[in-house]
Amino acid sequence: MTVRRLSILGVGLLGGSMGLAARRVWPACRVVGYGHRQSSLDRALALGAIDEAFTDAPRAVDGADLVVLCTPVGTFESLLTSIAPAVASGAIVTDVGSTKRSVVTAAERILPAGVRFVGSHPMAGSEKRGVEFSRADLFQGATCVVTPTPRTDPHALREVEKFWRALGMKLRTLSPDDHDRLLADVSHLPHVLAAALVTMQEDGGLDVCGKGFIDATRIASGDGALWSDILIDNRANLRASVERVKQALDHAVTLIEADNPEALQAWLNSAARRRDALLEHRAGQSEIARNDAAPNGQGPVTPL
Amino acid sequence: MTVRRLSILGVGLLGGSMGLAARRVWPACRVVGYGHRQSSLDRALALGAIDEAFTDAPRAVDGADLVVLCTPVGTFESLLTSIAPAVASGAIVTDVGSTKRSVVTAAERILPAGVRFVGSHPMAGSEKRGVEFSRADLFQGATCVVTPTPRTDPHALREVEKFWRALGMKLRTLSPDDHDRLLADVSHLPHVLAAALVTMQEDGGLDVCGKGFIDATRIASGDGALWSDILIDNRANLRASVERVKQALDHAVTLIEADNPEALQAWLNSAARRRDALLEHRAGQSEIARNDAAPNGQGPVTPL
Repeated sequence: MTVRRLSILGVGLLGGSMGLAARRVWPACRVVGYGHRQSSLDRALALGAIDEAFTDAPRAVDGADLVVLCTPVGTFESLLTSIAPAVASGAIVTDVGSTKRSVVTAAERILPAGVRFVGSHPMAGSEKRGVEFSRADLFQGATCVVTPTPRTDPHALREVEKFWRALGMKLRTLSPDDHDRLLADVSHLPHVLAAALVTMQEDGGLDVCGKGFIDATRIASGDGALWSDILIDNRANLRASVERVKQALDHAVTLIEADNPEALQAWLNSAARRRDALLEHRAGQSEIARNDAAPNGQGPVTPL
Repeated sequence: MTVRRLSILGVGLLGGSMGLAARRVWPACRVVGYGHRQSSLDRALALGAIDEAFTDAPRAVDGADLVVLCTPVGTFESLLTSIAPAVASGAIVTDVGSTKRSVVTAAERILPAGVRFVGSHPMAGSEKRGVEFSRADLFQGATCVVTPTPRTDPHALREVEKFWRALGMKLRTLSPDDHDRLLADVSHLPHVLAAALVTMQEDGGLDVCGKGFIDATRIASGDGALWSDILIDNRANLRASVERVKQALDHAVTLIEADNPEALQAWLNSAARRRDALLEHRAGQSEIARNDAAPNGQGPVTPL
């Protein structure tokens, strides 16, 4: 896919990084940014993340062949409504939202026929906020989940996959429902847990906390506005995830109170082994990705 | 304190790192290691972490002026019993255990008069296991909690504080009970949460997990044998910590289900601000520590 005019709606950390990466990958591409604060747009222009800036979303999508929604999840429905009359027929629209069912449903309902939507969730980011933390390599090596539905145009899906791959991402495909269920467990619940862990501490505990606590709670430093949208949007799945982690905690307490070191060890070690296997799997995937990128002209060793 | 003969009981990551650091700080110090596996002792000798090795604990403490228990918490009572007849009168004994009430109580009961015990918890370490991961700078800049009781000899306390400070540590003082209560919240609970988080995941979730999940669960890769001892030893406090984090989770779910983005944002942002303040405070302390270490011959700017 050669993107000639890319419209990035929302130029924070993710949108800004996308602009930097896209301008590097397609030097001829015109990158247009939309934001509701002129100050953020000015910073994005100064950083070279975008070529043009608009505080008006319909003007920002005018003539774009690819539009990417990069604002918080809770704004997607009104943003889609505002751009629907202005997006060119034949254009492709995607997003970077951390939840997928609601945005896919809204896009399929709101966007006119001829505008093709594909849900995406590039799993890159940081607890940092703002375009000033943008990095052209933010997406490199990270996973992007695309969430086609029976109504998704197969050609548009392939183009969107090519877009993320050009930014260095590995691709996964899930239905919007599976995405939201799995991400509740693996991303949204950890966020709530990290915030709960910080909130419940006494000052005296924080004064003696170690690196383990700092790492375990890193995600709690994320942007509350962004995350409250995500958690509310995915609340049904998240409620189930919270119940399941509470059950896992109760199980741990049962093992601890049984004063049975062997059973408790086995439980802890099975978690350790599972996490270690995950790290090894990811290291192996990075190895494959590096080989794929080797300049021998050959395609991927394994299908992505 | 000039340690002439240091006896390290248990030469894993912590014991090995202590040996490397002590030999650097006191080149004339003789470092003696005890372990129940000859293979670990041989690796410790080869790495230069210890000068002498024994698989017999009483022989390893013979003639030592400082003895440090570095085995898992669950072994402390039997280790203290075995070394009690062999420790020289006037020697100081301390430990690196992650719980303090049980070891302080056991030491004060088991060690003979004339042998002075001070409970310590150097909050350094790693999820890595084994002497081969030892680093002379493992303790540098980290916090060590000492837990004196009314029975603790004040001179021995000062000497133990000097020992940890010489290894680069910042010191805190807590009662054994306060230590165990605060550490349940800030260390033992996060460990159980991380293991629970890993255990409850579907394979499909792990396949799309991001860096946030990897960081939030790093501590789950720790040694199950070491941690099962800690969790069982501190089970009463830990049960209360688990109840409190479950209440914090229920509170979060209430905010999420109320569909009230402002209240949820406020909760998330208060957690983010509290963690950010913690990081700033720690960065400030490191700055003070660096200034203290400046070669201008002046003492600490603030008392430790």
